[in-house]
Amino acid sequence: MTGTAPAPFTADDYRARMARAAQAAADAGLAGLLVAPGPDMVWLTGYTPTAVTERLTLLVLAPGRDPVLVVPTLEAPDAAGAVGAPALTLRDWTDGKNPYAVTADLLDTSGRFGISDNAWAMHLLGLQRTLPGTSYASLTEALPMLRAVKDPAELRLLAAAGAAADQAFEEIRKVAFAGRRESEVGADLAELLRRFGHSQVDFTIVGSGPNGANPHHEMGDRVIERGDMVVLDFGGLKDGYGSDTTRTVHVGEPTDEERRVHDIVREAQEAGFRAVRPGVACQEVDRAARAVIAEAGYGEYFIHRTGHGIGVTTHEPPYMIEGEEQPLVPGMCFSVEPGIYLPGRFGVRIEDIVTVTGDGGRRLNDTTREMVLVD
Amino acid sequence: MTGTAPAPFTADDYRARMARAAQAAADAGLAGLLVAPGPDMVWLTGYTPTAVTERLTLLVLAPGRDPVLVVPTLEAPDAAGAVGAPALTLRDWTDGKNPYAVTADLLDTSGRFGISDNAWAMHLLGLQRTLPGTSYASLTEALPMLRAVKDPAELRLLAAAGAAADQAFEEIRKVAFAGRRESEVGADLAELLRRFGHSQVDFTIVGSGPNGANPHHEMGDRVIERGDMVVLDFGGLKDGYGSDTTRTVHVGEPTDEERRVHDIVREAQEAGFRAVRPGVACQEVDRAARAVIAEAGYGEYFIHRTGHGIGVTTHEPPYMIEGEEQPLVPGMCFSVEPGIYLPGRFGVRIEDIVTVTGDGGRRLNDTTREMVLVD
Repeated sequence: MTGTAPAPFTADDYRARMARAAQAAADAGLAGLLVAPGPDMVWLTGYTPTAVTERLTLLVLAPGRDPVLVVPTLEAPDAAGAVGAPALTLRDWTDGKNPYAVTADLLDTSGRFGISDNAWAMHLLGLQRTLPGTSYASLTEALPMLRAVKDPAELRLLAAAGAAADQAFEEIRKVAFAGRRESEVGADLAELLRRFGHSQVDFTIVGSGPNGANPHHEMGDRVIERGDMVVLDFGGLKDGYGSDTTRTVHVGEPTDEERRVHDIVREAQEAGFRAVRPGVACQEVDRAARAVIAEAGYGEYFIHRTGHGIGVTTHEPPYMIEGEEQPLVPGMCFSVEPGIYLPGRFGVRIEDIVTVTGDGGRRLNDTTREMVLVD
Repeated sequence: MTGTAPAPFTADDYRARMARAAQAAADAGLAGLLVAPGPDMVWLTGYTPTAVTERLTLLVLAPGRDPVLVVPTLEAPDAAGAVGAPALTLRDWTDGKNPYAVTADLLDTSGRFGISDNAWAMHLLGLQRTLPGTSYASLTEALPMLRAVKDPAELRLLAAAGAAADQAFEEIRKVAFAGRRESEVGADLAELLRRFGHSQVDFTIVGSGPNGANPHHEMGDRVIERGDMVVLDFGGLKDGYGSDTTRTVHVGEPTDEERRVHDIVREAQEAGFRAVRPGVACQEVDRAARAVIAEAGYGEYFIHRTGHGIGVTTHEPPYMIEGEEQPLVPGMCFSVEPGIYLPGRFGVRIEDIVTVTGDGGRRLNDTTREMVLVD
């Protein structure tokens, strides 16, 4: 069973995406794209193998040639059933055959190719060995924006996923926090995401008290106490598209310092959001959020970039990070999620998904960014 | 949250595994091993990152040096909490830094390295670019048997996972098949695997009637009918170790041809099992099973290899396939799973996990291999 519900796309949609991708490859001076199972493949073809194993499945897109999906014979019937299958040719290979030789027949023997970030190293090595005259670049390096600009149907799906995550937050703020384990609140969050239509829960971070100061702490056995700050960061896939939002709540009345830190993060998030408009470099979003935190004296405690793209995954280009000069383009979607992490004490993070519009940004999350007090 | 329950291994166990792996690398003429998140890393360190992303996490094992885990700063606290953490040094890197440069400092600049099969192509390309004098081989190519020989604690866990899968089969044979969708029976199977202790369900294949002739058909909307053969192939992870078993049941009375095909597959599976003993090449297990099917005139309908290894994954070396000359060693665990697939009609497959003993093989699945009739 594939991990995601079918998206409302047709074989023609996938045909158009594959043609655009092949053209983008040509424009970038590449002889073609080698697309592995995962987000690139599902976006280009609608196909997700039942399991990703050592058996090579690879979509070959070359400018001026029809798309070909190299697939194990065993999995060919499933691949033939994918929505995008009418837009490509299957080339199957049987156990015992060399799948790299099968692929090599489709490739320019001295070309440079873009390859999915998450293609397995063993497969890249197999291609390099079989075609020593070829060279490769990861898709994030060669065509980082391949999936970054969402079309209107994708934006509707992302907005719906965001709205579902917001519904989950509106429910979770009503549950009891004090006296329960982080893992219990996390289980509630996962259940709520599923209730509001998610087919896949990717993360349910519940970082209470000192655990909130570890941005990637997921959840644990710690019993949440009155007086705790609790970072809630959760998301997954709904109808094939991602959600990801963070709110930091407080159990009972916060201290002045806790209020102050929360206010700084809220202002930083607002500043990052306000920096979003077409033509602005990604790093400017990071700088805008970071400046607020640095000016308040907490710069050393904001220990990650400000955001990441979202689409058929919950984590992809573009990245809102110092050094990323890619200009924003209408239709891009990404998180704006500054935070302050005080080791051993508490953390605060506030995160919305934002999409670039014609003249600014639009949030796809819209629960309150004021500190919510929970029981 | 990591996908698997903690295995009953200590930091000393992981230290010993890492030392053995480094020694195996040296014996194979490698300057070291580069281990990506996933089964290699969990086996060597007990560590599974919360999510595998574009941020580099890589275990570097070099003969004569202490193990180093390169890890994003964000994830360093989680990594420090892994059971194997006391046996290694963390080297963290912060967003914006070049993680390949951090890794390169740990590597012989002209060495040949083994790298996890499933390491991301983007990371391999980053290393190749940073250290152009290095070369790489996938672990399946360089050290295919690294995880293949299980120690007694691992064998106990694999036996327990197999027993749990067998319990699931004993329950699923009691449910109603006729009139229900494959997906409903599959959901029952997943629920049973979890009930009997699985933390992760990897696959629940329910291939009824003509769907059974597609070995990797997972399950679908087809309503199972009286007279159907139904291939049930299911497994996942229990306490970090895999199960994988297949039985083919029949709804009501089978035809003579169905009985005959099932008998042939059962005999083939028995022949494969009987071929298992130390020193025998993997391909002999495949040949033994295949010969029975070929002699019965169905050779062209057995369209996959006879088996695959199992351990911290449900799919790994050694492979029981023509051309694999690796001799069997006591402690290896793998599937023996011949099948016959008659396109458009039905399929039959029978699969047990088998471990190599001092003088033969021992099955880790032990439900009846006779055809079970269901309602």
